Amino acid sequence: MKKTDVLVIGGSAAGIVAATTSKSFYPDKKITLIRKEEQVLVPCGIPYMFGTLTGSDQNLVPDAVLANAGVELVIGEAVSISQEKKNCKLADGLEIGFEKLVFATGSNPVKPQWLKGLDLDNVFFIPKNKEYLDKQITEMEGCNKVVVVGGGFIGVEMADEIAKSGKDVTLVELLPHVLSLAFDKGLAILAEKALIARGVKVTCGKGVKKILGKGSVSGVLLDDGEIIETDAVILSVGYRPSVTLAQEAGLNINEMGFIKVNEYMRTDHPDILAVGDCAEKFSFITRTPKMTMLASTSCAEARIAGMNLYKLSTVRSFTGTISIFCTAIGDDAFGAAGVTENLANERGFEILTGLFEGVDRHPATLPDTHKQIIKLIASLDSGIILGGEIFGGKSTGELINLIGFMIQNSMTVDALLTSQIGTHPLLTAAPTAYPLIKAAEVIAKKRNKYLH
Amino acid sequence: MKKTDVLVIGGSAAGIVAATTSKSFYPDKKITLIRKEEQVLVPCGIPYMFGTLTGSDQNLVPDAVLANAGVELVIGEAVSISQEKKNCKLADGLEIGFEKLVFATGSNPVKPQWLKGLDLDNVFFIPKNKEYLDKQITEMEGCNKVVVVGGGFIGVEMADEIAKSGKDVTLVELLPHVLSLAFDKGLAILAEKALIARGVKVTCGKGVKKILGKGSVSGVLLDDGEIIETDAVILSVGYRPSVTLAQEAGLNINEMGFIKVNEYMRTDHPDILAVGDCAEKFSFITRTPKMTMLASTSCAEARIAGMNLYKLSTVRSFTGTISIFCTAIGDDAFGAAGVTENLANERGFEILTGLFEGVDRHPATLPDTHKQIIKLIASLDSGIILGGEIFGGKSTGELINLIGFMIQNSMTVDALLTSQIGTHPLLTAAPTAYPLIKAAEVIAKKRNKYLH
Repeated sequence: MKKTDVLVIGGSAAGIVAATTSKSFYPDKKITLIRKEEQVLVPCGIPYMFGTLTGSDQNLVPDAVLANAGVELVIGEAVSISQEKKNCKLADGLEIGFEKLVFATGSNPVKPQWLKGLDLDNVFFIPKNKEYLDKQITEMEGCNKVVVVGGGFIGVEMADEIAKSGKDVTLVELLPHVLSLAFDKGLAILAEKALIARGVKVTCGKGVKKILGKGSVSGVLLDDGEIIETDAVILSVGYRPSVTLAQEAGLNINEMGFIKVNEYMRTDHPDILAVGDCAEKFSFITRTPKMTMLASTSCAEARIAGMNLYKLSTVRSFTGTISIFCTAIGDDAFGAAGVTENLANERGFEILTGLFEGVDRHPATLPDTHKQIIKLIASLDSGIILGGEIFGGKSTGELINLIGFMIQNSMTVDALLTSQIGTHPLLTAAPTAYPLIKAAEVIAKKRNKYLH
Repeated sequence: MKKTDVLVIGGSAAGIVAATTSKSFYPDKKITLIRKEEQVLVPCGIPYMFGTLTGSDQNLVPDAVLANAGVELVIGEAVSISQEKKNCKLADGLEIGFEKLVFATGSNPVKPQWLKGLDLDNVFFIPKNKEYLDKQITEMEGCNKVVVVGGGFIGVEMADEIAKSGKDVTLVELLPHVLSLAFDKGLAILAEKALIARGVKVTCGKGVKKILGKGSVSGVLLDDGEIIETDAVILSVGYRPSVTLAQEAGLNINEMGFIKVNEYMRTDHPDILAVGDCAEKFSFITRTPKMTMLASTSCAEARIAGMNLYKLSTVRSFTGTISIFCTAIGDDAFGAAGVTENLANERGFEILTGLFEGVDRHPATLPDTHKQIIKLIASLDSGIILGGEIFGGKSTGELINLIGFMIQNSMTVDALLTSQIGTHPLLTAAPTAYPLIKAAEVIAKKRNKYLH
């Protein structure tokens, strides 16, 4: 039997970060990472293998990340864990004993079994699996018409990327708008416009009733009777945590199917932790369980697990997911963090919102100036910022992190209004019309009316 | 005599923000802004009038900003203030009575009187004045060789922009490196390399002894005896606060020449405030007086003044300048916030630093990927982040604001390591190798060694 100190199961973002953080904080411990895949894809880069990149070879996480950090890599499939013996059996018969175990087993695409036609040729899912996706890319070469089902971030990105090659792409979303979990109606409509401008057909408010075809897919039947003819269907309707191994090992699984963990990412067994898509999540703001699967959350959890392996630290605990999203459709970028106005109302928060439309350069006569719209959502009584949405240029990715930080640090609108914000003509909005500050000012004005 | 409720003197960033914030928070008050200039330039945009933009007309702050906010604009020069009578006399004889007065009189370029040759033709400064700069742009058309003296942000940007037109530009800096007040040696050298790659000659560690010429400038004599022949000289060696009006009105001026104010931006007279380049500043971190003149600081001060005009609020006070800088030289952007390693050591902080070099997209095979280097500086005993420096692509402008927020909120390295950071292939670094987090990890590792 092989022996290690810390065993991490899973080689995607959460597993890598858990392993490398463990080694950073406990350099004397032996850290071993097991994963099934020969090569690991950058998970968020998968849609870009269908257009911007030339294929999966351009979208690999280099194993040097592990080797350079001093983490041992074992390629193999973990098939059983013993909590008592503290060991892990692999499919090839190898047994590895551990002091600490970290589950980072990730998630798999939802395959809605009630939907007829799932087994037809050219019906695809988006697993984080190089072989599957390489095959899919090859098989889709001959498909001129493609239907993407599910208008979340991955569906939107897949539709946009596939349309780049000139294929006829239709995106079908059950809810009234795409990206509805991240954005309120206003910005979601801008995302739809951006997709349409890039040649994607967008069909919202309709579900898929049946996938049609004989042998190979020929169309999808929507619930209003409309049929969209197609050569391929990509289902992007969510992911489920991969917890079979943990469940069979006797660990507790919560009502949503995730491995139960506390704020130090520990399961009920003090030496077994879980991080990333397979680990239980709750919302930082609403304090209710969440399905959110995001690298931002996974990697924060993984760092927290790695730092707390052999000793706990109160300042290194996980306080709930902030749900920070961002994406780009052509030159337009979209970011969201915290709650939407819709969700805040639904959950019973008394809120105020502020919206400001400006530009991301100053003066606006500068070459690559892009419109920038910021919406903020704050609590009426405390002024604490609960959520934000951005439409803008490429700086949106870091700007939404600014809003994420504000939310994670329970910043108020007043704290934001007294903050110093660096600006530069070529890089940001103007100091006199910085949309984040102006949106906060709108909220402060409304709050003043309530308070006086 | 004319009457107003709030009188703001000065029409640049600080004045505009003070006036518009006042109107936002006290909508029933009459707000009047006086300024000398017919048209106001975007101050940070001035260097770009010399290259990227076609001239000053593309770099104007639209007066609509004031009109839309309901602020009255008076063009005229304030020549005296009476603290007792609470009125302001203008050069044209108009008298305006006020309840509250806000000085936002800004700053003027330093003209080193000991330096011979300042009065030669084609020796220029960079005042925030449209007429002067329009004339300068015309006069410089015939100049093939240009020397820019002073390698701060404005000097660097001027040199880079003027070189765009094919002129032979030399940047002369007295200190060993350009941008030395914002960056430690490492990133300053990258800025010098970027300038050189764009065709600017960079001469550091030498001062200017004399400006040579008869009638018109013909060269500059450096203190090691070297002579650089030139057709024009631009002096960019700092700015001094414009405080004559305030001083003559009897207000206190501090030892560095700024109008003395408290944390609510009030002068010794409770109804008279000062904001922006003319107002006293101190450092958020070192707690000592500072010369820093930045739109980020000015606009935060102006918002604080506007909100506190008629009543004070403890959560709306100014706690010292963070010194957030950013700029771009071609595709390379540079950002800094808080203290440098040099300054921290000089002031006696016991610090740890963390440096990480990565890229700003993931995978790095994506088209517009740019190298990203982040350096963080944190206090050894508390782990509180005191400073940061960034070299990267265009997202640097918002990313340095993220570091600025961390500093302003006294965030620790631990808080950063448990933070959720949104990432996206097309917009940011990878979640597994996000340079800001990796730099923090370097510090945490060093701190662990001290603690255990």
